[in-house]
Parts: sequence; structure tokens; C-alpha cells
Amino acid sequence: MNHILILGGDGYLGWPTAMYFSNRGYRVTVVDNYFRRNACLELDVGMLYALPSLVERAKMWHELTGNEIKVVIGDLQEPEVMRSLFDGRIRYDWAVNPSFTGLPDTVVHYAEQPSAPYSLINHRYANITLQNNLVVTNNLMFAVRDFERDIHIVKLGTMGEYGTPNIDIEEGWIEIEHKGRAERFLFPRQASSLYHTTKIMDTDLLWFGVRMWELRVTDLMQGPVYGLETDEMEMDDRLKTLFNYDEIFGTIINRFIVQAVVGYPLTVYGRGGQTRGYLHVRDTLQCVEKACETPAKRGELRIFNQIMETFAANELAEMVQKVGNELGYDVQIDHIPNPRKEAEEHYYHPTYQGLIDIGVTPHYLTDRVLENMFKTVAQYRHNIREDVIFRGVQWG
Amino acid sequence: MNHILILGGDGYLGWPTAMYFSNRGYRVTVVDNYFRRNACLELDVGMLYALPSLVERAKMWHELTGNEIKVVIGDLQEPEVMRSLFDGRIRYDWAVNPSFTGLPDTVVHYAEQPSAPYSLINHRYANITLQNNLVVTNNLMFAVRDFERDIHIVKLGTMGEYGTPNIDIEEGWIEIEHKGRAERFLFPRQASSLYHTTKIMDTDLLWFGVRMWELRVTDLMQGPVYGLETDEMEMDDRLKTLFNYDEIFGTIINRFIVQAVVGYPLTVYGRGGQTRGYLHVRDTLQCVEKACETPAKRGELRIFNQIMETFAANELAEMVQKVGNELGYDVQIDHIPNPRKEAEEHYYHPTYQGLIDIGVTPHYLTDRVLENMFKTVAQYRHNIREDVIFRGVQWG
Repeated sequence: MNHILILGGDGYLGWPTAMYFSNRGYRVTVVDNYFRRNACLELDVGMLYALPSLVERAKMWHELTGNEIKVVIGDLQEPEVMRSLFDGRIRYDWAVNPSFTGLPDTVVHYAEQPSAPYSLINHRYANITLQNNLVVTNNLMFAVRDFERDIHIVKLGTMGEYGTPNIDIEEGWIEIEHKGRAERFLFPRQASSLYHTTKIMDTDLLWFGVRMWELRVTDLMQGPVYGLETDEMEMDDRLKTLFNYDEIFGTIINRFIVQAVVGYPLTVYGRGGQTRGYLHVRDTLQCVEKACETPAKRGELRIFNQIMETFAANELAEMVQKVGNELGYDVQIDHIPNPRKEAEEHYYHPTYQGLIDIGVTPHYLTDRVLENMFKTVAQYRHNIREDVIFRGVQWG
Repeated sequence: MNHILILGGDGYLGWPTAMYFSNRGYRVTVVDNYFRRNACLELDVGMLYALPSLVERAKMWHELTGNEIKVVIGDLQEPEVMRSLFDGRIRYDWAVNPSFTGLPDTVVHYAEQPSAPYSLINHRYANITLQNNLVVTNNLMFAVRDFERDIHIVKLGTMGEYGTPNIDIEEGWIEIEHKGRAERFLFPRQASSLYHTTKIMDTDLLWFGVRMWELRVTDLMQGPVYGLETDEMEMDDRLKTLFNYDEIFGTIINRFIVQAVVGYPLTVYGRGGQTRGYLHVRDTLQCVEKACETPAKRGELRIFNQIMETFAANELAEMVQKVGNELGYDVQIDHIPNPRKEAEEHYYHPTYQGLIDIGVTPHYLTDRVLENMFKTVAQYRHNIREDVIFRGVQWG
């Protein structure tokens, strides 16, 4: 039975991933330091509903399914916390069987500060982002190097690493011909936030490790994720994953739905031509699963562009407006001055075929999906704090 | 009168840079936390001669020339230490005039852990390298962003960022044509040590800052430096810069000379076809001076390849052997198993014209230069500890 270790197992993607793999017979260990929950408290940005602790969730999951998700609460910036997960010194904060599960077959690395505005609040938040993201990745790389190089690292990258170049975006790599000679290089990366820049650095770091020590790494260049429905979360309301609707941690579609429900005009930044690739949380899980089932080879940095379709911000706002209006909400769209520094109209032509080639079946952003999101959000309408929706963190 | 702030002012390049600018009428402030000296102690790798403290050196310089080099001893990983240099809160550890000099016109950023083997001793040294280099650069970037964006940042990069690609290496940038469209990107980077990878990350970070906040940045992609002679160091033996001859901190030419002087066979790694670009310490100073005199524009990341000629490791060993033998030493060359993971024969065709175009006059590695280095090293022959020359840090 495969063992999967999920770093950042309390997060928006981490917890659904843990249940998904547990439900499919994997042995699962999750690690988290509650960074996201603490940051939400510190910055006073609300979540749509309160969450049980990670230990409580694991207990509920066990009661419901009989499956064990072992829990470690700890900061993976500490090398010895990371290394204890590999050498057996770990003491679980919750487990049915407290003995060491053994080395993982796969490590899914989500343990990063994931917000662009957070990373640009000021120099302190920039440093937190830089240190957390880089040191955790480095500790993971060295642990795999030192304890078992055959372990497959599945790392979450972001489409934002590429930025919005004037050429087609390939899946991670490009062949460059120059003055009669040629070589294959990482596709050029130039991101438009400090957070996204740390993800470029992660790529630099793991590409170094792959070449030096023949590690196996899959890099999932993900677009913004939306949605709340997975089979496991639907088993019990208390198993739902966290849901942020604020500008700092809320992703655009989730945020727009909340704004529509409370009658807060949808905040489109500037002209709204910013085009990105999106996917449903169900597809994140499918992508990670397929990546685990067909691991990268030794010495391979395998890169997938993890998006299912692209939309401009204006298109998303219009889709949410249309569905919201049909459901009886009065949805307004507001083009506010762009707090970010980014192209508001640009060429955007990414390739995204690799994950479909290994078996992922895409879900799309349909009216039906939006309607379901509206219904879930409406249940928690009384929790929504309008004052935290927009904070105006300036890239300036 | 221009004010230049030198981060890492106690180092092999930092101290000669401080005297060079002071001698040319600049107001100079140096900052250092003695990282290099402490690391040499901790790792027990000897320097060729003992050094006065940075404060002692600044005092001697003042006695000799009447010029003031203000000294700050502090760790620039602390954001408030960095920011105090810009907002006037700084208290100098030594100065003739203790009042705040004011904002610098130029910051020369050398404050990094500069050794590839150091960065790969184990995961702890990897983390130290990663954190020091990235956090100092980030603190500098945010200080300039927050206090005065017109300040010119001159940052030391490394030719090692490019690695040894199969195409010609341009000066920092490359135009990529792809499927009928084109854009100019950073030249692809893929380094062969963790240290060199942190320098790629520095580039990622500053390129982000330049695009977001229209900073002025010059990136000097330097090759390994050799030599001990500058006009200022020749004023007094006690003003000499540090000189390492060990595998961790000693650069290849400096190390070979020491090995030749004590009859330790020159340690060529593997087949010795590793080709790199080199320059004399005098040329580092010239390059930094020319870069300061003609700063990058607002919103420009200007990149120069800072080398004057290229040599394979075998060629360097043969040159040192020839000159050494002429001076009466019996110089042997030993091809040892390569502790590094790197190509031992490879294509290497870098461009390096930009610095010459702005007025740098190259010095070359002549027999005469090598003879002078032999003479200096021979003076300190009794200090050389043969047991620390080779440590065998494995990339493995």
C-alpha cells in the first residue's frame, strides 16, 4: 500500500488531497504548522466558516471511514522536523497506530505561503514568504537526497511563474536555437509578485537537485483553483476545506461568488483583460493522483501546466453575474484601479495537454458548478464580513 | 561627492573596493558581520595571513590617507539593520564623523556566502547560504524601494549562473523566437552548485523588483577572481585583503599558487577541461567603478559578463607549473577524482564586451602576474597549513 506524505495538509488543497488519497487506500501522513490559519487571524481576514483542528478532522475522518490520516503539527522550516519524517524520529500528534509508517513513496509539497498580496504587504511579509517557501523546499530536497532518492516529489508550482509572455507558453521547457546551436532549457519565467517569484526559485532549486542527485520531481504549474465540492468533503459538512473570500487569500472565482451573494460589486482590477488558466479543486486532486501513479523518472524534472481552461477576469465576472442574477441576486461589476502591477491586456497562449495525456478528465466552469458554489456560500452568508473583502494591498 | 555603501565590506573584494573608492574621493560606508572570518574559524580553514579587524583597517586607512571609511558591524539579514543604513538610524561602529552620511548614491552588494563547496557541506550549510543570500538581497531591494528608488544597486552575480550550456552565452539576455512570435528574456540559467543557484534566485528577485518598482540594477556576472595587488593594498602590508587557499573559500588560481609554493601537487578535478572566465582583482574594481559612473537607468536590469579571458583548469595548472618551475619550485599536477558534479569537457563560448564598452581596460593573467603572486605567497609560506588545502566536499 502506497504511503503519501502531504506537506501543508491543513490547507485549501492539502486537506482534500489527504482525504482523497486516504479514500483510495493510500497510507497518508499530513504535516502542517497552521501557517494559513494564523496568518488569517493576524491579518484579520475571515474565513467563510470555522474549521475543526487538523487533529479533530483526522479523528472525524477515522470515525466516518475507518481510515487513518496521521497528523504532525510542526514547522518544516526546521530541518529536524522535516528529517524526522524520513528517519523515523517523528512523533505523531495524532495517529491510530503511533509507530512510524516508514518512508513515503511520494511527497506532495503544498507547504508554502501561497498569496501574492500577502507577499507584498511590506518587507516583513516578503521575507516570511521567501524564507518559508525556499527553506521548506530546500529541507525537503536535502531530506530526499540524504534518506531515499527514489521518493517522488510532487511539488505545486504556479502558472504565474511564466507571467504573460508574448510567446506561447510550453509545458515547462523550450528548445532554444541560437547562432547555429541548440539546447533545451526551462521555459523562461518572470512573475509579477514576490510570492510567484519564490515559486520560480523553487523551480531553480529542484532543477538543481534533479541534475545533481537524480531526484524524481513532478512540478505542477497550477492556475487559480475554485470550488468546494469533492466526494470526500460531501460526506460531512465538518470535513469541508477552508474557504477564504478576502483579497489576500481568496482566489478570484471563490471571491466573486461571495461578493455576489452579499451584494458587494465584483472587484475587477483595471480593464479586466488579465487572462489566466483555471481549474476545479476536483481536478487538482485528479492531477496529483495521476502524477503519483505515473511518477517522474530518476533524474527527471517533469513539468505539467495544471489548468483546464482560460478566462479573462472580465469573463469570470460576467459568468458570475449571469448565474447570480438568475438565482435572484443583484450582481454588479466594479472596475477598480488596479492595485497590482500587471498587464491588463496581453497575449496568453499556454499549452496544457500533459495531464490529460496521463489520464486526467477535465471538469469545466459551467453554470451548474457556479450555482452549486452560490448555494454553499449562501448557507454561510451570515459569516461574511464585507469589511475584509478588499484590503487594497498595493504592488506600488 | 558621491556616497557608496558597500555591503560585505570586509571580504576579499569588499575591502579593496572600499579603499579604491575612498582613494578616488568617494564617501564610503562598509557593512559586514564577519561571516567569512567566522566560517573560516568554524570550518578550520586557514587564511594566508592574519587580518586586522575591519575597524582597525579603517583606522589605519584614515591614518595613512586622511580618508574616512565608516564602518558598521551588523547582520544584514536583520531588516532593521539594513533599513537603518537608509533612514539614518544607523550608529557607526567606527567613523571620524559619527553623523549620518545620508543616502548612498550606489550600493555595492557583496554580502553573500560565496562558496560552492560551503553550500554543499550538508543541509545546514545549504540553508545558511540560501537564507543569507536571499534575505540580504530582499532586505536591500525593499529598503531601496521604500526609501529612495533612484539609488543604483550594483550586485555581484556570477558567470556560474549560466552553467555550461551548449549555446553561446550572451550578456544576460536573449531574444527567443518561438512559433512566429518573439520576446527578450533573461538568458537561461542552470548552475552546478547550490551557492550558484542562490545567485540565480537573486537575479529572479531583482528582475522582479526592477519591473515592479523601476529600480536601477547592474548585475556583474563575475568569473573567479585572482590576485592580491591593487594600488591601495600596496600602500601598507596591513591593508592587504583576505587570502584563502583552501578548497572551500580559495579561488582556483590563488589556490594553485599556494599549492605550488608548498610542493602540494596542483589539484585538478577530473579531466580538467572545465573552462571558465577569469579576471584580476584590479579589474573587479575597475568594473565596479565604471558601473557606478554610468549607472543603470530607472527600470533597467543591466547585466555584464565580468570576465577578461577564459581558461580550462588544465591550462591554469600548466601556467602555474611553468612559472613555478622557472622560479625554482618543483610543481606537480595531480588529476584527482572530481568531487563536484560538472562537465569536464564542454562547449563554452561567453560574450564579454559590455564592460570594455563602458571603459574598462583589461588586465590579463601573464607570467609576470603569476610571478608576483608567487612572491607574495612565498613571504607567508610558514603560515600555510597543508592539511586544510583539500577537504573533499562531495557534490554526491
